[in-house]
Amino acid sequence: MLKVVVVVGVPGVGKSSVLAVATKKLSERGYRVRLVNFGDYMLEYLRKSGVVKSRDQIRSLRLATQLEAQKVAARDIRSEFEALPGDRVIGIVDTHAVIKTQLGYWPGLPLAVLQELKPSVIVVIEASPDEILSRQLRDSGRYRADLSSRETIEELLQINRYYAIASSVISGAALRFIQNSEGCVEIAAEELIKVVEEI
Amino acid sequence: MLKVVVVVGVPGVGKSSVLAVATKKLSERGYRVRLVNFGDYMLEYLRKSGVVKSRDQIRSLRLATQLEAQKVAARDIRSEFEALPGDRVIGIVDTHAVIKTQLGYWPGLPLAVLQELKPSVIVVIEASPDEILSRQLRDSGRYRADLSSRETIEELLQINRYYAIASSVISGAALRFIQNSEGCVEIAAEELIKVVEEI
Amino acid sequence: MLKVVVVVGVPGVGKSSVLAVATKKLSERGYRVRLVNFGDYMLEYLRKSGVVKSRDQIRSLRLATQLEAQKVAARDIRSEFEALPGDRVIGIVDTHAVIKTQLGYWPGLPLAVLQELKPSVIVVIEASPDEILSRQLRDSGRYRADLSSRETIEELLQINRYYAIASSVISGAALRFIQNSEGCVEIAAEELIKVVEEI
Repeated sequence: MLKVVVVVGVPGVGKSSVLAVATKKLSERGYRVRLVNFGDYMLEYLRKSGVVKSRDQIRSLRLATQLEAQKVAARDIRSEFEALPGDRVIGIVDTHAVIKTQLGYWPGLPLAVLQELKPSVIVVIEASPDEILSRQLRDSGRYRADLSSRETIEELLQINRYYAIASSVISGAALRFIQNSEGCVEIAAEELIKVVEEI
Repeated sequence: MLKVVVVVGVPGVGKSSVLAVATKKLSERGYRVRLVNFGDYMLEYLRKSGVVKSRDQIRSLRLATQLEAQKVAARDIRSEFEALPGDRVIGIVDTHAVIKTQLGYWPGLPLAVLQELKPSVIVVIEASPDEILSRQLRDSGRYRADLSSRETIEELLQINRYYAIASSVISGAALRFIQNSEGCVEIAAEELIKVVEEI
Repeated sequence: MLKVVVVVGVPGVGKSSVLAVATKKLSERGYRVRLVNFGDYMLEYLRKSGVVKSRDQIRSLRLATQLEAQKVAARDIRSEFEALPGDRVIGIVDTHAVIKTQLGYWPGLPLAVLQELKPSVIVVIEASPDEILSRQLRDSGRYRADLSSRETIEELLQINRYYAIASSVISGAALRFIQNSEGCVEIAAEELIKVVEEI
């Protein structure tokens, strides 16, 4: 019995740390866990198709091409999850509910993607705007320049919630918000584990 | 000509009272009204399938089973409505746009349910957080413990709106918010009747 | 290569002015631009079917009839766009994410419409509540009475955002908010042009 868990969060909430801890613990508790990054699968498809050479080029593609890559990535991920042996299989997808670009917001979990992924639950990792801001400053190389003011972060957190809710209604998946407070990554990871186990 | 009206609201808004008054009045005005509780149909399906014995057990089911039960319930309700004779038939579904559980939010009107129900309108019964709180205190046996603070209720009212809007966009149904203020159940019922008659 | 751009906005944001400027400039820059009003296509279909004689009668139609007209309008618009010759074709649809009526909110871009239109991007033209209010007062003949208070406008702007986000998730289209500040229609139009060119 496969459970697909989609984990989203705006840049700077500490999603990767929570996922690293949760994945390790779930494996220790006897689950067969496979954690994949959605963007990696999109990139792989676009590279194989000869469309791009690097990740940076994806954002400048035509929307139709990006949508096709999203759909194929979702299908590939679901297939890979379904091929995993065992009866305690958990497929975790590290992705975004919405991606903010210079041109606008881009849905990370549109209908076409959800119909392929068939997630059991969408988990939204959140943090306070101040914590997000300080994580971004610490790690400024990783983040986009447009995420610099407190107001922008607050707005993005709100928009992110609306996007996640729409994706939940489209897919029928449950939706869970988890706060990742500074220094409490273990607590956030335990909350995620509980959701994954009980959903 | 069948009209399907979906009525939702968070626990404590007084949805049942509004529905009781509106249903009685619509019948008196010559409509053939059938009011069904969505959860009853889910429970009936799950009982028949031998999956659960009581309503309390539904929440602990795997999400995939719950989704299947939701879909079957929606199909059964629509079939029952369509079988009603006459030309002034109104099917009213008492349900939720979103259900808050220990594990997270669960969509009550996802795409799969809406494609079966084909509602003409989604009506959201609302009340002020204070009124909801006092109704919950008066009738504490019926409500879940997680609905106890004013902030939690305010948040749930907001989330409920977002869920209802997403369900409206998916289904193409109109969306109406109706305030059910303390002591004014007749007014709320009349507003509901007007929507049902004119939509 | 056809790009379909859906432009929405609540009454009074100055959508028509932005569209007029943007359409003219895009044509001057060598694009084949076709700007259509969604409501006109609905009206044309309903007139041909003998259902209504004037635009005012549309709002009093049964929801099922309106939904059918929406779907046909979307299909007709897409077909017309696809028939345009050339390789720099831009189809712009002037419409609404949500329409407020006496009976409730009515989705302008439900799933059934989006599946036909297949937009690349949904652009939401916005303005401050005060600017919207003063535009409505200046041009009071054009606007519905229900848009008269500042609070009502603020709420409608919010609801409009939620509707647009849900439509973005359903369609996979990008979503862009553009502020049309008083006296700055050229700036708003340039932002729209940039989105249209680069998406």
